[in-house]
Amino acid sequence: RHPQGVKGGASERLESHACNLSVLLWTCTRTLAHLVTVRWDVSRRNEMFMFASEPDRKLVRVQDLTPEKADQLIWLRARVHTSRAKGKQCFLVLRQQQFNVQALVAVGDRASKQMVKFAANITKESIVDVEAAVRKVEQKIESCSQQDVELHVERIFVISQAEARLPLQLEDAVRPDGEGEEEGRATVNQDTRLDNRVIDLRTTTSQAVFRLQSGVCQLFRDTLTKKGFVEIQTPKIISAASEGGANVFTVSYFKTSAYLAQSPQLYKQMCICADFDKVFCVGPVFRAEDSNTHRHLTEFVGLDIEMAFNYHYHEVIESITDTMVQIFKGLRDNFQTEIQTVNKQFPSEPFKFLEPTLRLEYTEGVAMLREAGVEMGDEDDLSTPNEKLLGRLVKEKYDTDFYVLDKYPLAVRPFYTMPDPHNPKYSNSYDMFMRGEEILSGAQRVHDAQLLTERAQHHQIDLEKIKSYIDSFRYGAPPHAGGGIGLERVCMLYLGLHNVRQTSMFPRDPKRLTP
Amino acid sequence: RHPQGVKGGASERLESHACNLSVLLWTCTRTLAHLVTVRWDVSRRNEMFMFASEPDRKLVRVQDLTPEKADQLIWLRARVHTSRAKGKQCFLVLRQQQFNVQALVAVGDRASKQMVKFAANITKESIVDVEAAVRKVEQKIESCSQQDVELHVERIFVISQAEARLPLQLEDAVRPDGEGEEEGRATVNQDTRLDNRVIDLRTTTSQAVFRLQSGVCQLFRDTLTKKGFVEIQTPKIISAASEGGANVFTVSYFKTSAYLAQSPQLYKQMCICADFDKVFCVGPVFRAEDSNTHRHLTEFVGLDIEMAFNYHYHEVIESITDTMVQIFKGLRDNFQTEIQTVNKQFPSEPFKFLEPTLRLEYTEGVAMLREAGVEMGDEDDLSTPNEKLLGRLVKEKYDTDFYVLDKYPLAVRPFYTMPDPHNPKYSNSYDMFMRGEEILSGAQRVHDAQLLTERAQHHQIDLEKIKSYIDSFRYGAPPHAGGGIGLERVCMLYLGLHNVRQTSMFPRDPKRLTP
Repeated sequence: RHPQGVKGGASERLESHACNLSVLLWTCTRTLAHLVTVRWDVSRRNEMFMFASEPDRKLVRVQDLTPEKADQLIWLRARVHTSRAKGKQCFLVLRQQQFNVQALVAVGDRASKQMVKFAANITKESIVDVEAAVRKVEQKIESCSQQDVELHVERIFVISQAEARLPLQLEDAVRPDGEGEEEGRATVNQDTRLDNRVIDLRTTTSQAVFRLQSGVCQLFRDTLTKKGFVEIQTPKIISAASEGGANVFTVSYFKTSAYLAQSPQLYKQMCICADFDKVFCVGPVFRAEDSNTHRHLTEFVGLDIEMAFNYHYHEVIESITDTMVQIFKGLRDNFQTEIQTVNKQFPSEPFKFLEPTLRLEYTEGVAMLREAGVEMGDEDDLSTPNEKLLGRLVKEKYDTDFYVLDKYPLAVRPFYTMPDPHNPKYSNSYDMFMRGEEILSGAQRVHDAQLLTERAQHHQIDLEKIKSYIDSFRYGAPPHAGGGIGLERVCMLYLGLHNVRQTSMFPRDPKRLTP
Repeated sequence: RHPQGVKGGASERLESHACNLSVLLWTCTRTLAHLVTVRWDVSRRNEMFMFASEPDRKLVRVQDLTPEKADQLIWLRARVHTSRAKGKQCFLVLRQQQFNVQALVAVGDRASKQMVKFAANITKESIVDVEAAVRKVEQKIESCSQQDVELHVERIFVISQAEARLPLQLEDAVRPDGEGEEEGRATVNQDTRLDNRVIDLRTTTSQAVFRLQSGVCQLFRDTLTKKGFVEIQTPKIISAASEGGANVFTVSYFKTSAYLAQSPQLYKQMCICADFDKVFCVGPVFRAEDSNTHRHLTEFVGLDIEMAFNYHYHEVIESITDTMVQIFKGLRDNFQTEIQTVNKQFPSEPFKFLEPTLRLEYTEGVAMLREAGVEMGDEDDLSTPNEKLLGRLVKEKYDTDFYVLDKYPLAVRPFYTMPDPHNPKYSNSYDMFMRGEEILSGAQRVHDAQLLTERAQHHQIDLEKIKSYIDSFRYGAPPHAGGGIGLERVCMLYLGLHNVRQTSMFPRDPKRLTP
């Protein structure tokens, strides 16, 4: 009844059973329930979820399995990545996140025939505890991250058994597009991935993407904290839809209606008016746009900055671009493994940037596009294809994947954008681009209630709806500027990926609300 | 026409006017618009918002105005905190966040009579640029943070003029309850504060509270990052209301309906099932509870943790309590100024904690309450008054403001809570308390799809609605536990405040959606 988890002989099995009952119960029940017909009462079954006392074991990590550990007996908890039985032997690959190691269960002194059979029947993706000897190998194991050692398994327990039929195979999910097509090997389409995200997130590529994303947030905050910024928390449920109420989600709020914030901008600006001087926030942003493109989500993570300046809004541009540069450097220096892991599946050129960051004026950008044959008016907005083309032209000319386009036409920006004092057709506003795609939109804001009122009227915005916003500037407001960065876009473009859903753990778009 | 902003003599004024036109325009326009009837065309008025070229000035910070700067001529940008004219002199207090300094404008070599009059007319809360000599004072200026120096103003410009009538006075807003009542001095009630949050947030108390809050988030993340946790971003718009759909906000989502997440728990658990091992997230949490209490908000910031463990869920409790202890230590060591500032208005005892954190079992808590005269059954839930009473009893007995209550009755916890293997009436779940109020609720989660199904059925939850949740555990799931901390409560209770609205910048409750 306990073929698994015990050394070769039956007496040892019994001994182990007797002295380590709760461990066995905990670890084996799920498996036993499949292998033999045993009824467990509730109290006994619950034992599987807690050891009565902690066993005297240290679990090692797969990434630490190196030749220095050779000939040691170790304990390991890992997933069964693959399993291949071959006569009296069973080869397992055991995986922890992006690391894996080969393990051998072979009939002999240490393992019975039954145990090999048991090991061979463990379903892929099950979680197991193994006791094993670490052995150096003569030939590198190319298919594993731990190439110099393998494990000779002496005991194996199933901690959590996976269902036999997986909705997708991890090896298919990391296969580069087109590779192995002639052998009829599958890749996994995006909807299958997203529908089964719990499994798709286990791939080396996903693990790398989201560890890097965690790094982007940390670098963003650490850089700004060092610059004296204060982190703020802004509400997501708001009473009035700013900017005329387009593209906003409505929420039932007790007996009334409310909206989901399209950006934290109003609140960041209120913090500036409240003397916080330099603020940032990281949080969800909601856009009810029915856009089904590679770069639009209905909910994404905004990395937002707002800052009072002394004399010129370029002080703020410099703070933001320097923050981006610190992020790029931090990723380059601390996330090489992750970048290379992603590149294996999705090859791309390393991300290039300049110090200081290139800043072009809008008119310069338009001139470059015209030179390349694009016909557009001085005050026309940039179309997405023209943004991408301009990105390529800038890359050719300046060898950078990151730049700022400054001084947008006033007409294409929101009402709260400060006009250019030297030319009323333009504005003190800017976008920032990575690999030709917009990742930040920002501006100096109108900080004067009277001018703000005029600008809102010009845009035919109902003043009643933005009264509290305008009132925020009536009691002394410093000149200020800021911007909002899309986290998923930064990760997508830094890694050279092609869909923002690859860098959103649980993406939301007009057609997807699950998982 | 330019009485402000220039030195005594008329010739100097003209000279200054001529050579520094754009500065004058930028800084004076708002003021001039009030003082004299001048029409500015749009392009000229816009000049006020940007210097044509950056002036060659370094702005000093108020906190750096110490006797070492004596007799230096400096530039400063600050708010007019108070203003008092007295014959040929005008005393201003200039403020930057929690720091302030006295400034004197006096008729003499450096300032004309007109300039003194102009200074006296600057409204409170206006933002000004001053050029001034730093002078040591013989008698400490008790009312200012900079007690050893004052400024002798030579030039003054209005950067942004506040409206003359403020909706609340900052000195009223920081007055401790009851102080100055006999002199008829006002304090500011909570709704007035919240209605005019932009001004209320300028008080020394608010500045301190929210700088400390920023610190809590940073300490939380830094501690967990050091422990190997990965930060995740979880969606707030969800397709199904878990736990039966009570207390959930509904969102119109294109042609269908969705909900706002009541917690990131499902997503944290999916990340554990997806091999992220240890995760945390910081983000908004939404509760459609019609509770109008001192500690309930409809939107608050959750500091959430989820972690796979090896042998016992107490490994997770230890990680969480150690994180809390690191936060308490970080605040104690790095935020003393903020704590003392808040204490001036809201006195409280210093926050006490033990290392390691005290962990009591639920039955021990019940026994202590019974000993104190409370009548309650073994498996009754704790009422809020009993939680507070228990907090006081624990403080008396153990001298700590922070402790864990472990092993709650299974019946009072959600369906996904792991039952205690040794006693099916209890569960592997816990709350954590600060000054007798709950700040975290957490548990070991059921990680087995079959047991989870049974527990959901027991709670009469529609299995169809939680299908994708249960399915997450079908492909191998490690045992795990976690919990969610309320940021605003942690700040409130650490500081000994009495309303969670004091530690939420823009609080949301059933009756408040603005600003």
